[in-house]
Amino acid sequence: MKVWNTLQVNRAARLARVGALLGSGLQGKVVDAGRVDDLLYAALESGDRVCLEGNNQKQADFLARALANLDPARIHDLHMLQSVLALPEHLDVFERGVAAKLDFSFSGPQAGRVAKLVSTGQLHIGAIHTYLELFGRYMMDLPPRVCLVAAEAADRHGNLYTGPNTEDTPAIVEATAFKNGIVIVQVNNIVDTLPRVDIPGDWVDFVVQSPQPYYIEPLFTRDPAQISDIQVLMAMMAIKGIYAEYAVERLNHGIGFDTAAIELLLPTYAAQLGLKGKIARHWALNPHPALIPAIEAGFAESVYSFGSELGMEDYIRARPDVFSVGPDGSMRSNRAMCQAAGHYACDMFIGSTLQIDLQGNSSTATLGRIAGFGGAPNMGADARGRRHASPAWLKAGREARAGIDTIPRGQKLVVQIVETFREHMQPAFVDKLDAWELAEQAGFDIPPVMIYGDDVTHILTEEGIANLLLCRSPQEREQAIRGVAGYTPVGLARDKPMVEALRARGVIRRAEDLGIDKRLATRDLLAAKNMKDLVRASGGLYAPPKRFRNW
Amino acid sequence: MKVWNTLQVNRAARLARVGALLGSGLQGKVVDAGRVDDLLYAALESGDRVCLEGNNQKQADFLARALANLDPARIHDLHMLQSVLALPEHLDVFERGVAAKLDFSFSGPQAGRVAKLVSTGQLHIGAIHTYLELFGRYMMDLPPRVCLVAAEAADRHGNLYTGPNTEDTPAIVEATAFKNGIVIVQVNNIVDTLPRVDIPGDWVDFVVQSPQPYYIEPLFTRDPAQISDIQVLMAMMAIKGIYAEYAVERLNHGIGFDTAAIELLLPTYAAQLGLKGKIARHWALNPHPALIPAIEAGFAESVYSFGSELGMEDYIRARPDVFSVGPDGSMRSNRAMCQAAGHYACDMFIGSTLQIDLQGNSSTATLGRIAGFGGAPNMGADARGRRHASPAWLKAGREARAGIDTIPRGQKLVVQIVETFREHMQPAFVDKLDAWELAEQAGFDIPPVMIYGDDVTHILTEEGIANLLLCRSPQEREQAIRGVAGYTPVGLARDKPMVEALRARGVIRRAEDLGIDKRLATRDLLAAKNMKDLVRASGGLYAPPKRFRNW
Repeated sequence: MKVWNTLQVNRAARLARVGALLGSGLQGKVVDAGRVDDLLYAALESGDRVCLEGNNQKQADFLARALANLDPARIHDLHMLQSVLALPEHLDVFERGVAAKLDFSFSGPQAGRVAKLVSTGQLHIGAIHTYLELFGRYMMDLPPRVCLVAAEAADRHGNLYTGPNTEDTPAIVEATAFKNGIVIVQVNNIVDTLPRVDIPGDWVDFVVQSPQPYYIEPLFTRDPAQISDIQVLMAMMAIKGIYAEYAVERLNHGIGFDTAAIELLLPTYAAQLGLKGKIARHWALNPHPALIPAIEAGFAESVYSFGSELGMEDYIRARPDVFSVGPDGSMRSNRAMCQAAGHYACDMFIGSTLQIDLQGNSSTATLGRIAGFGGAPNMGADARGRRHASPAWLKAGREARAGIDTIPRGQKLVVQIVETFREHMQPAFVDKLDAWELAEQAGFDIPPVMIYGDDVTHILTEEGIANLLLCRSPQEREQAIRGVAGYTPVGLARDKPMVEALRARGVIRRAEDLGIDKRLATRDLLAAKNMKDLVRASGGLYAPPKRFRNW
Repeated sequence: MKVWNTLQVNRAARLARVGALLGSGLQGKVVDAGRVDDLLYAALESGDRVCLEGNNQKQADFLARALANLDPARIHDLHMLQSVLALPEHLDVFERGVAAKLDFSFSGPQAGRVAKLVSTGQLHIGAIHTYLELFGRYMMDLPPRVCLVAAEAADRHGNLYTGPNTEDTPAIVEATAFKNGIVIVQVNNIVDTLPRVDIPGDWVDFVVQSPQPYYIEPLFTRDPAQISDIQVLMAMMAIKGIYAEYAVERLNHGIGFDTAAIELLLPTYAAQLGLKGKIARHWALNPHPALIPAIEAGFAESVYSFGSELGMEDYIRARPDVFSVGPDGSMRSNRAMCQAAGHYACDMFIGSTLQIDLQGNSSTATLGRIAGFGGAPNMGADARGRRHASPAWLKAGREARAGIDTIPRGQKLVVQIVETFREHMQPAFVDKLDAWELAEQAGFDIPPVMIYGDDVTHILTEEGIANLLLCRSPQEREQAIRGVAGYTPVGLARDKPMVEALRARGVIRRAEDLGIDKRLATRDLLAAKNMKDLVRASGGLYAPPKRFRNW
């Protein structure tokens, strides 16, 4: 007769092993930090699917180190589920033979090592996902057997307070606890009373107070001092040629200086254009410090966040009308729900990339680096399930379908903003993406594309804006892209008459076509010119991490 | 100087009003049921955005009634946010002038009344959304000022136990609590100790024990006795021509007898074809009673659910390896996360519709009825942000792009399964969707389409399967659709030579092309032929609601 509760039985066995091995090292749900190895040996089994909280920012680093140090003779062949690989320990588990397989979303800082371990066969990639896709699989066909997560504080019942950096934690814990898995949490503090409960203690099995607070990366902090005049020009074109043109009220920005420049031009340039209250009102965005001047000016009315940003805590607490703040006064973020908002509630995604090909496909995968894409594929894809209308969405849909006999439908604006040459004079425009060769090397079924060309609506460079919505053939599309690709080989190979014809039709628009005076495109337009300006704009509430305190 | 905490101040004022008005009728967070009117008068303000938990199944009916009975002279112009309008009270609030505006997802049983109130100007529709889209907007630009939700039980601290019908509750409460809104909950019981905590008491302001348990609709129960031989034939074609053909392992089924027939053919017909372990292994699905035989046969290995289904509680509890069950033994569902799984982790969506046009656009909107679409647009759209591969996804992508010079990409299978004539001999295939006229009547920006033709990959009728992935022009597409539209006017107007050419290419496949013997297509193939069979298959664990106990 079939047994239907193997997971429950197995869970009970693990809990019993932990109890037996830890003895007095286990008080209720609280485990001595010194006994974390024993906890893992007792709770884990070789071959387990283990979700380690590598987030974009917050890291369960104490548990990651403990996991990486396990004896591979005892625990091996783990299948790691992890949205972000950020720390060396995240790769050590593979190098040491503790883990063998990986499903993930982003590995920015460790991308080179991922590629190397794949080539030696020590790491087998299940798949690369966008965040919400990975969370969906946690729930459906990849539930973690054990999860290792991080929170700010716990009480003795295992109730968790995540503070503003809630991030992936709720999704991971829910997926694990409701498939009879084991939930292990590192916390900075164990306290009697939490500011609020973010995750019920019923869902949590073990809590360890880590010797150091968890590591957190200020990933979204950009020093305005590093923004160039060229980036100011591009930001002016974005605001006048896209934000204003489509009346974009709800949006997400990618990470980087290009979009930071736009944020810093809202209270100056965009305000001069009379756009306050008309564009960029509602944001799905981490609390970017560069957004402070726009918030103070009443430009950005609300910000819903995937995670928090180091140093922004007091500022957020003092601006509860803007951020998602609980009755206790601190923010709660939620990567899963914010990705849903980014996909479905935003009229526009704008972000940078490393390579764009002639069809407009873009990728951050370059040779020898398997980086993944984080949230970009989810937010940079047309949300084809969307059914609510907005002026921006309707206009984009109309442009894409003008003259075509098809039922009307709106479309998301997906903008790629890049300088034609990136670092080390590498052209951003290429005939063929490195992703093709990488796919071959790594044995992927198809090349890893971040955003597909047929989802991209605009490409913006220092040379101008190519509106791909208005292109009516692959040839027009290719020439529209070449027409803003500057002095790169792709740009130089343009068909000049065709590019001029596209410009006459408004498919390509240069700064001068938009009535932008290039002489005004200087850093003087930035609402904050350096970190100190941001602190000042915040009324002293923003406290940048040390490495950004350069005054 | 700008005030940044208006929401906090306003929240405090509301809480103070409730305290002052209720006096001893308020004990901690617990409000006497007899004082619910006073609670609402004190907590609400005219013009508020109010999220009322109308779910697909669970209804905050006690609070809905109280809201509908408020004096419109005191509370009016509410903006209702509600995923499902199921009860008469959901429309009474508009008829009585308490509410004026509505953002929603689905209004099946009340669709006619919605249309009527729109035409009289008593109800202004913000927009129709798919569920996940609406939840995204709760978080981003439509946070509720007050929410009225339902749970199974609460303790005196306001901690909530939702039981298996978690549904929308976590998303609604999170969106409200973290924008300094007011969270009001009706519960069936107030107890000392909950089986588990689903929602932390910190997020909850007031709890009312309702005089009756909340209403719940067994929406996904289909009596196998009502399945026809024709539906068995269509199910055979689906299994052999699509599930097996693409090796579909992860999927979602829509609601209805067409897909119930497929569920009941898995342990019989599909097993005979040797498909166990190869198709239909992982489900994003409510606990359909019709799935019991497939679960018992080991065919359906895991089921992750949006909500629960009345009568399935004990069966679920006894099959914890299959369902998402917590340490307490009961299920937790989650509509938001299951919609994410349905969008991103599923290889296929298959469901029915009311009308399909010549481009393959389908809609359940018919004249005089504004029904909305629930989850279908989210699950029945190509998930363009998806980046993980599966054989089904890759094959669909290859078919769509064969012979076209473009970068490889997978695609979701989106199947519309319909008989050519629906009830009252209304043709399912039409030249023009009623949605066009409805849009004009209701003042929508564009016609309300459930699933757009360019997302549909297959249309399956009793006449055969049209594979739209293989069509290379709008003309081919139209003829492929006509070629399975039977004796409807659309079907009769087919270009016969072109349809035969499409059939020769495998774009259209009839039962005989699939090697299906139509004589075997009888109800004898169903693994359960009536409700009693389902109960028997469950080992007596499934307890159908009274109205389905017809033996």
